[in-house]
Amino acid sequence: MPGIAMPIRSCRLAELRWPEVSALDRDHTIIIQPVGAIEQHGHHLPLDTDTAGAEQLALRTADAVNAAGKGVAVVAPTVVWGTSPHHLAYPGTISLSMKTMSDLLVDIIGSLTRHRFYRFLFLNGHGGNAGVLAATALRISEELGISPAVVTYWNLIRDTLGTVMTSERGGLGHACEMETSMQLHLRCEGVDMAEAGKSLPRDLTTFTTLDFRTPGPVMLPWDFSRDSKTGTMGDPSVATAEKGRAVVDAAVGRLTALAGELLALGEADFRKA
Amino acid sequence: MPGIAMPIRSCRLAELRWPEVSALDRDHTIIIQPVGAIEQHGHHLPLDTDTAGAEQLALRTADAVNAAGKGVAVVAPTVVWGTSPHHLAYPGTISLSMKTMSDLLVDIIGSLTRHRFYRFLFLNGHGGNAGVLAATALRISEELGISPAVVTYWNLIRDTLGTVMTSERGGLGHACEMETSMQLHLRCEGVDMAEAGKSLPRDLTTFTTLDFRTPGPVMLPWDFSRDSKTGTMGDPSVATAEKGRAVVDAAVGRLTALAGELLALGEADFRKA
Amino acid sequence: MPGIAMPIRSCRLAELRWPEVSALDRDHTIIIQPVGAIEQHGHHLPLDTDTAGAEQLALRTADAVNAAGKGVAVVAPTVVWGTSPHHLAYPGTISLSMKTMSDLLVDIIGSLTRHRFYRFLFLNGHGGNAGVLAATALRISEELGISPAVVTYWNLIRDTLGTVMTSERGGLGHACEMETSMQLHLRCEGVDMAEAGKSLPRDLTTFTTLDFRTPGPVMLPWDFSRDSKTGTMGDPSVATAEKGRAVVDAAVGRLTALAGELLALGEADFRKA
Amino acid sequence: MPGIAMPIRSCRLAELRWPEVSALDRDHTIIIQPVGAIEQHGHHLPLDTDTAGAEQLALRTADAVNAAGKGVAVVAPTVVWGTSPHHLAYPGTISLSMKTMSDLLVDIIGSLTRHRFYRFLFLNGHGGNAGVLAATALRISEELGISPAVVTYWNLIRDTLGTVMTSERGGLGHACEMETSMQLHLRCEGVDMAEAGKSLPRDLTTFTTLDFRTPGPVMLPWDFSRDSKTGTMGDPSVATAEKGRAVVDAAVGRLTALAGELLALGEADFRKA
Amino acid sequence: MPGIAMPIRSCRLAELRWPEVSALDRDHTIIIQPVGAIEQHGHHLPLDTDTAGAEQLALRTADAVNAAGKGVAVVAPTVVWGTSPHHLAYPGTISLSMKTMSDLLVDIIGSLTRHRFYRFLFLNGHGGNAGVLAATALRISEELGISPAVVTYWNLIRDTLGTVMTSERGGLGHACEMETSMQLHLRCEGVDMAEAGKSLPRDLTTFTTLDFRTPGPVMLPWDFSRDSKTGTMGDPSVATAEKGRAVVDAAVGRLTALAGELLALGEADFRKA
Amino acid sequence: MPGIAMPIRSCRLAELRWPEVSALDRDHTIIIQPVGAIEQHGHHLPLDTDTAGAEQLALRTADAVNAAGKGVAVVAPTVVWGTSPHHLAYPGTISLSMKTMSDLLVDIIGSLTRHRFYRFLFLNGHGGNAGVLAATALRISEELGISPAVVTYWNLIRDTLGTVMTSERGGLGHACEMETSMQLHLRCEGVDMAEAGKSLPRDLTTFTTLDFRTPGPVMLPWDFSRDSKTGTMGDPSVATAEKGRAVVDAAVGRLTALAGELLALGEADFRKA
Repeated sequence: MPGIAMPIRSCRLAELRWPEVSALDRDHTIIIQPVGAIEQHGHHLPLDTDTAGAEQLALRTADAVNAAGKGVAVVAPTVVWGTSPHHLAYPGTISLSMKTMSDLLVDIIGSLTRHRFYRFLFLNGHGGNAGVLAATALRISEELGISPAVVTYWNLIRDTLGTVMTSERGGLGHACEMETSMQLHLRCEGVDMAEAGKSLPRDLTTFTTLDFRTPGPVMLPWDFSRDSKTGTMGDPSVATAEKGRAVVDAAVGRLTALAGELLALGEADFRKA
Repeated sequence: MPGIAMPIRSCRLAELRWPEVSALDRDHTIIIQPVGAIEQHGHHLPLDTDTAGAEQLALRTADAVNAAGKGVAVVAPTVVWGTSPHHLAYPGTISLSMKTMSDLLVDIIGSLTRHRFYRFLFLNGHGGNAGVLAATALRISEELGISPAVVTYWNLIRDTLGTVMTSERGGLGHACEMETSMQLHLRCEGVDMAEAGKSLPRDLTTFTTLDFRTPGPVMLPWDFSRDSKTGTMGDPSVATAEKGRAVVDAAVGRLTALAGELLALGEADFRKA
Repeated sequence: MPGIAMPIRSCRLAELRWPEVSALDRDHTIIIQPVGAIEQHGHHLPLDTDTAGAEQLALRTADAVNAAGKGVAVVAPTVVWGTSPHHLAYPGTISLSMKTMSDLLVDIIGSLTRHRFYRFLFLNGHGGNAGVLAATALRISEELGISPAVVTYWNLIRDTLGTVMTSERGGLGHACEMETSMQLHLRCEGVDMAEAGKSLPRDLTTFTTLDFRTPGPVMLPWDFSRDSKTGTMGDPSVATAEKGRAVVDAAVGRLTALAGELLALGEADFRKA
Repeated sequence: MPGIAMPIRSCRLAELRWPEVSALDRDHTIIIQPVGAIEQHGHHLPLDTDTAGAEQLALRTADAVNAAGKGVAVVAPTVVWGTSPHHLAYPGTISLSMKTMSDLLVDIIGSLTRHRFYRFLFLNGHGGNAGVLAATALRISEELGISPAVVTYWNLIRDTLGTVMTSERGGLGHACEMETSMQLHLRCEGVDMAEAGKSLPRDLTTFTTLDFRTPGPVMLPWDFSRDSKTGTMGDPSVATAEKGRAVVDAAVGRLTALAGELLALGEADFRKA
Repeated sequence: MPGIAMPIRSCRLAELRWPEVSALDRDHTIIIQPVGAIEQHGHHLPLDTDTAGAEQLALRTADAVNAAGKGVAVVAPTVVWGTSPHHLAYPGTISLSMKTMSDLLVDIIGSLTRHRFYRFLFLNGHGGNAGVLAATALRISEELGISPAVVTYWNLIRDTLGTVMTSERGGLGHACEMETSMQLHLRCEGVDMAEAGKSLPRDLTTFTTLDFRTPGPVMLPWDFSRDSKTGTMGDPSVATAEKGRAVVDAAVGRLTALAGELLALGEADFRKA
Repeated sequence: MPGIAMPIRSCRLAELRWPEVSALDRDHTIIIQPVGAIEQHGHHLPLDTDTAGAEQLALRTADAVNAAGKGVAVVAPTVVWGTSPHHLAYPGTISLSMKTMSDLLVDIIGSLTRHRFYRFLFLNGHGGNAGVLAATALRISEELGISPAVVTYWNLIRDTLGTVMTSERGGLGHACEMETSMQLHLRCEGVDMAEAGKSLPRDLTTFTTLDFRTPGPVMLPWDFSRDSKTGTMGDPSVATAEKGRAVVDAAVGRLTALAGELLALGEADFRKA
C-alpha cells in the first residue's frame, strides 16, 4: 500500500530509532497510548494488573492492525500509573493527582503532535482513569487542536462479558473474575489463585453498582480499604485462563476494528476547525 | 422527625442566612450542586440550556425530597459554566479549562466541608462536564476526605428516553429532541421552534455515536463547528413540551430516589477511612 | 443608530441564542460581568447579598444603557462566589482561592474575547474581591491584550452615601446600613430586620477603618469570626428600603454614565498596542 | 523595655546572623517588606524608582521605629520587581505575572511565619502592585493564618500631596512631580531633569483619572506605550528635591505611626481565630 | 537476617501483590526509582536508550543487593520519559515539562512514603534530568520530610570511563561511545552500528564541554538539531559490547555499594528533623 | 568598537533609564543575573552571604568586561532568595519553593527577551539553587527559545580552591573557610570571627561528601538543623580576607573569560533552531 512504511521493526515506539519514526507516514499511522495503574488488586493479583492488561491489549491490537496492512499502529510507552486515590491505603499503590496525570498525558501527546502525528487512541485499563482521560481528551482537543480517541477496553465487550462471566451482578468490580481471568491468560506468573477469594461489598445505593457489564449510572468514589478487606470486589475464584483468553480476544478484535476505523477517517476529522 | 430542621425557608442555599445554615442537621442534609454550561445550543435554544436544565431538576428534586420529610435537600449556587471547548467557535459560548473547572468545584465543596456538610450530589446537565466531574470527585475524595456522588441526569432515565423520544439512533445529541422538549417545558420563552431544524452529523466511527439513550463506548471529542452548521446534533423539530414534562418528571423521580438513598447512608459511607 | 442591533431580546447573555450573540455589533456592545460573593451577612441578610446587589445593579444599568440607544449592554452570567476567606468560619460561606477566582475570570473573558468582544466592565459587589479583580484586570490586559474596566459600585457613590447614610464612621462595613437598605429595596423577602442588630468592632488601627464612605488607607484582613459575633460590622438597624432605593438609583446612574463613556471610547483604547 | 532586644546591629534582616534573628522578641518585632518595580519611569528616572522609594521609606521608617524604643522594626529584602505588564513595551521593564508575584510573597511570609514572626507590613511603592498585594494579603491570612498589613505609601499622605504638589489634576501619575521629587531627594544621581518633560495623557473616562491625590473610582489598565510617548504621565518638570523631602518626611511620619500602632496590637489581632 | 523478608518473589515492585509489599521491612528496604528519557539517540540507537540503561542498572543493582542479604532492594516502575526539550526537533522524542516531571516524581514518592518507605534512590540515565531531579529532591525533602538520594550513573564511574573509553575529549556526549557500548551489551537488538557515525559538534565555549568523564563547569543548553545533523555527539563507531560490559559492571558495582551504604544509615538520616 | 554603546552610566540595569537600555546593542550586550539565598550561615556570617557573594562577583565581572571594551555587561537585579528548605529550621532563612523560584527566573528572563536581549549568564552563589537553575535553563530554552548560560562560581575555580584552602576534605561546605574568607574580603562588617567555629558533620556516605573542591557524585539533601548545631559545615576559623581576595580574584577572572566567550558567540548559538 503506497504511503505505508511496512513492516516496522517494532510496534513499540520506544524501540524505534528516530529516522524510523521520521519515516512513518502520518496519514496512515495511529499511535496507541496504553494507560494503566499501579494499585492493589486483592491478595492474588500483582500491582501492575491494569497496566499489564492495557499494554498487552495495545501490543496485540497493534500486531493485528499491522498484519492487516491498512495502516501502521505504534504503541507509545505505557503510562503505568493512574489516579488511584481510593486504593492508597493498600501498600504498593502509587497514585498520581488529577493534575499530574492530565499534564503528563498532555505533555506526551503534545510531543507527538510536534512530530505531526494526529491519530491517537488512549487505551485505558483502569476505571479510576476514565474521568481524567475524558477531561484530558477535551483539553488536548483545545490546547493541541487534535481530538484523541479514548476507550476503556471493557466497555467495548460488554456482550462478551455478559456471556463469558458467571459472577452475579456487582461481581465484576476489581481484581474480579474478569481481571483475574485476563491475568491468568496474559502472564506466566504472579497470580496466586489460592488467595483469590470472593469479596462482594454491599452496594451503597441501587444506582452505584460497580459492574463491568452494566455499571450503575451514578458515581460515588469507593474507599476500598473501608469497603473491602482484601481489596477485591467480586469473585475471582471462578476465574480461568480460558475465560481470560475469550475476553482478551474479544477486546483485541473490537480494538482492532476501532483502530481500523480511526485509520480510515480523514485528517480533518481529528483536527479542530 | 428529630434532628431535621424543617421546613427550611428556601431550598436555595444562597438565599439562607448563616444561622439558618448553621441550624441544618448535617446528618440529614444533602447538598445538591447543579453544574451546567454556557454554550451554543443550535439556532433555537438559549446559551444556558444545560444550566437551566440542571438547576431546575435540582430545585424540583429538592422540593420533592423536602416534601418527603426524610431529610433536607439544599441546592448550592449553580456552576453555570462548563468545559465546552468544542463549542467555542460559536459566539456566546463560555468555556472553563479543565483545571479552572476542577479547582472551582474543589473550592466550593471544600468550603462546604468546612461547615461539616458531607452529603453531596453533583447534578450535571452537560455531557462535556462528565469527565472533569468524575475526575474531580476522585480528587475531592482524596483532598477533602469526602466522597461526593456524581450523576449526569439523562443516564438515570435511559428507559424513559427510549420510550418517549422518537428520534432515530444518533438523534439525541445536542440541542436535540430531548433538550428542546425539556426547555419547552421548563421555560416560558427563549425557544425558537421555527429554527429548530434537524441536523444529524455523520458518525465518525461505529463506536462513537452520540445518543443519550445508548451512547457509544468510545469518546472522540467533537468539533461542533466542523461537524454541524447550526450547532444542533439531532432532530429538535419533533420536540414538544409534553415530552419535556415526561423527561423532567422521570428525572426528578429518579433523582429524588437517589437523594433519598444517599440520605439513608451512614456518615462513614462518605468519609475516607 | 446604524450598527447597533436593537432591541435585544434579553439583556442576559445566557438567555440569548448564539445567532443573536453573533449579531451583536462588537463596536457598540459592552459586556457587564457582575461579581459577588456567597458569604455570611450577619443574622439578618442572606448569603447572596453581594451577588444579588451586583447582579441587580448590572441588570438595571444594562436596561438604562439599552434604553438610551447609544449602544448595547449585555450582562454575563454572574460570578456568584468571591474570595471570602475571612468569612469561612460562618456556615454557608463559600470562598474561592485567589488563583481559582482569577483563573475563572480569565477563562470567562478569554472565551468572550474569542468571540471578538472587547468592551468589558467588571461590576463588583464584594470588598474582598477588589484586590483579585484589580490584579486580574492587569493579567487580562497582558494575557488577552484587552483592558477591562473594574469598579466596586460603592466607590462610585461616596457622595450619596455621605448624605443618605446616618451611621457613624466605621458603621458602613458589612451587612450594614447600606447593604441592608439595598436588600430591603431589591428583594421581596429574605431580610430579617428583627435580627438586624448593631455591631461595631473596635478599629484595630486608626489607618484601617472599614467604611464605604471614607475607607482607611491601610488594609489589614479582618477575621470576622474573631471581630464580630453576628458577622455584622455596622448598624443595620437604621436601614430602610427608601435609603436602599436612593443608593441603588445613584449607583445605576453612575454606572450608566460609566458604561456610556466606555461605549464612546475607540477600540484602540481597549487594545494593547 | 523588657522583651525588646535593642539596639539591633542592622535594621536589614539580610545583614543579620541567624542567632541575632533568633533573639528578636516576636511580640515586639515588626517586619517591613518593601515591594517595588523595575519598570520604565520616563526619560528621566531610573528603572528602580519604585523600588528605591519603597526601600528607602522602609529603612527610614525602621530607623524611626527603632529610635522610639517601643519595639523593633526589621526590613526584609526588597521585592524589587512588581507586576508591570503595562510597561513591558519599554526596554528594561521586568514584570512578574500575578501568580509568580503572589507565590513569591507567600513563600517569603511563609518562611518568616515558620520563624514565628507575625507582625508584617507590606510597604508598596508601585501602583500596579496594589491589586495583587491586597489579594495576596487575603491569601496569606487564609493559608498562613496571619493577617499582614498592606499600604501603598502615597495613600497615607494625600493631604501632604495636596498641599505640596502643584500639578493640575491628573498630573500625579507616573514618573511625575511626586516621584521625581522623591528621587531627587533620595538619590545622589540618576535623575536627568533635562529630560523631565510634561506628558499628560488624555483621560479615557471621567471615572478613571490617575492621580495620587484623588484617584478615580474605576480601574482601566493603561497601556503606557499607547498612551504616552516618553512613558511619563504628569509634569516632572516642576519637581524639586525640597518637595521630595516633604513627601518623604510625611510618608515616614505616617508609616512610623502605623508601625507603632501595629506593634501595640495584641498577637490575637493578627492570628486567625 | 532478622527483619528482612527474603527472598522476595520479584525485585520489580509492580509485579508484587500488595500483601507482599506490606510484608517488606521498611527499615531494611530501599526503593530504586529509575528515570530515563524517550529521545533521539542518533541514527543508530533506539529512543529508549536512557530508559533501558537506567532500568537495567537498577534491576542488576537490586539483584546484587538482594543477593548480598543485607537488605532488600525493590525497583519502582521506571519513569520512562524525561525532560528533553533540546531533542524535540527529532521525531519520536517525548519531553515532559519541568513541572510535570517534578510533580510526577513527587506523586510517586509521595505515594510510597504513605506506605512508610523512606529509603529512596533516584537512578538517572539522562543528563537533561539532572537539574530537575536535584531540585525535586530538595522539594521532596521539604514537602514529604524525606531525603531521597539522587545519582546520575556515569558520575559514579568517571575513573572507569577514563580507562575504558577511547574517544577524544568532548567525545562522550550523546549516543556516544559509552551509550552505544552499553546498549550493545544490554540489548539483543535495536542498535544499528552501520549508522553509528562520529559527530563532534564544535565546543561553544571552553567552559561548556560535554563529556561524561570531565564535564565543563558551565551549562549552556544545547539545541541538538542545530548542533548535530544525526543527533549524535561523540564517536559511537568505536563502541563495543565489551566496553559496554565494563561500564555496566563498574556502574552496578558502585551502585550496589551506594545502596548498601544507604541501607546502613539510620532512619533519622533520611527524615527531616 | 562600532555597535557597542560605551561607557554605560552604570552596570546595574536597575539604575539605568529606559532610553539607556534601549540604546544597548543587543548583539554586544550580556546580562548577568546573580542568584543568591537568604539563609543561615552559621553563627558568624550574615543571612545574605550567598547573595552578597554572587552580586559582588557579578558587579566586578561586569566592570572587567566593560573595561575590556569587547562588549557590555549589565547586571540585572539580584534574585536575593534561593531554594533553601534544608535551612528553614534556622531563624531568618527565607526559602522559595522550586516552582516559585523557577517561575520567577522565567518571568525575569521572559521580560528581558521581550526587549530582545539574548545573551544571559546566571551567576549562582548558593549550592541549593544548582538543580532548579539547571532545570530552569532547559525550561527557558524551550519556552523562550533562548539558551542561558548557568554557572555556580566555585565550580570555575576548583584549582584555586585546591591551592588556597587548607581545610581537610569535607571542610568546604557551608559558612566554611571559602565563604567566610570571601565575606571577610567583600564586606566591611557583619562577620563575627569570634563565633567562627569548626563544625564538620559526619559524612552520611562515601559518595555524598560536600566539598567545593571535589564534591561527591551523589546528592542526598542535608537537614542542617539535624546535622550541625551552629549551621556551619566546615572550618571557618582558618578563613582570612587574603584567602578571600584570592578566591574572588580567581572567580572574577574566570567569569570574565566566560563572559567574553559568550559575547564572542553568534546570535544563532543562543537561539533555538
